[in-house]
Amino acid sequence: MATLRSEGKFITLEGGEGAGKSTSREFIVELLDARNIPFVQTREPGGTALSEALRSLLLTKEGPAPSVEAELLMIFAARAQHLHEIIEPALAEGTWVLCDRFTDATYAYQGFGRGYNLSAIELLEQMVQKGRHPDLTLLFDLDPGIGIERARKRAELDRFEEEELAFFERVRDGYLTRAKGNPRFVVIDAAQPVNVVQRALQKTLEPYFGSEFHG
Amino acid sequence: MATLRSEGKFITLEGGEGAGKSTSREFIVELLDARNIPFVQTREPGGTALSEALRSLLLTKEGPAPSVEAELLMIFAARAQHLHEIIEPALAEGTWVLCDRFTDATYAYQGFGRGYNLSAIELLEQMVQKGRHPDLTLLFDLDPGIGIERARKRAELDRFEEEELAFFERVRDGYLTRAKGNPRFVVIDAAQPVNVVQRALQKTLEPYFGSEFHG
Repeated sequence: MATLRSEGKFITLEGGEGAGKSTSREFIVELLDARNIPFVQTREPGGTALSEALRSLLLTKEGPAPSVEAELLMIFAARAQHLHEIIEPALAEGTWVLCDRFTDATYAYQGFGRGYNLSAIELLEQMVQKGRHPDLTLLFDLDPGIGIERARKRAELDRFEEEELAFFERVRDGYLTRAKGNPRFVVIDAAQPVNVVQRALQKTLEPYFGSEFHG
Repeated sequence: MATLRSEGKFITLEGGEGAGKSTSREFIVELLDARNIPFVQTREPGGTALSEALRSLLLTKEGPAPSVEAELLMIFAARAQHLHEIIEPALAEGTWVLCDRFTDATYAYQGFGRGYNLSAIELLEQMVQKGRHPDLTLLFDLDPGIGIERARKRAELDRFEEEELAFFERVRDGYLTRAKGNPRFVVIDAAQPVNVVQRALQKTLEPYFGSEFHG
């Protein structure tokens, strides 16, 4: 007899540079593995061949920078393909999706960071997502002064990471504004020690694990 | 004493495959050269390094095809950059822009051809063009059965050119619907001999040439 499986959970990780998203993602992967929950790990912009090609065009420092409109439309084009090829099929078959950045990042970076019209972002969101939103968004909040220092030590900076500090302060404000009063957000203080962050993650995720049987 | 130069004219060439747009463009270039009119020749999707990179991603037959939304957003991203880097600066300095395909093609191919929501295309048009529209659109109209035969003989077909005949019939209908009652359109019967087409082009362009002095 076939078992009816409910739709997978869609979990996004958000936050500025150097906020420890990767370390936390690895920890969440361990939690999912330990519970036999089927999942895919992915990221934005990216996640499909086409979307990764768009990501490269977005992050490169070669040639004239894209205009704000071009940047925004490329991000949503990458997202449309990501939803079409990866996210929607996975969720439909009961696979969880763990995604490094999603549309909240677009509001934070292009909207609050670059000052682009928020209602235009909203229109594109509706056009591309057709009502699809994350079930849970983990926002790793950190003073951008500290975050950028961490990111700088890690690798060469991309076109976004090279922005000035005031830009990242607007991005942080944007994220916190989005989170305020929105029940799908859990804000995690990323300045805390790793083990404290991990306890917070476990406590946040536990209720989601409990909601179904995975065999 | 500096001479005040008025804004350049924005002329677009539209039509299906094999309708003789390239031959006609060369003829228009000769007319502009003979009158000392400064101009740039460009095309869509394309015209800038970023937009040409997007064009390659749009036309390739490798990998899964972009979803209709991804395709549409990439086309408008390429257009945003094209307007930003090439078209708007050229027109502002009095240079004419001769562009092979523009937004009418998006209505015809993505809207009528693929059946995508026309009002979504309209929203993107407003977001990206901010009121900018061609001064003159030359629509080369041809039975798609004939056009595709011509295109097939010319070169290997790209992802769009490989569509079925019914798609191109919808594209043609789309173009003719756009042209109807819109004074910036001039429809040219592309089944006529080249010299007849060229006489029609000359007659159409003459009033635009006359409107200003080029020294």
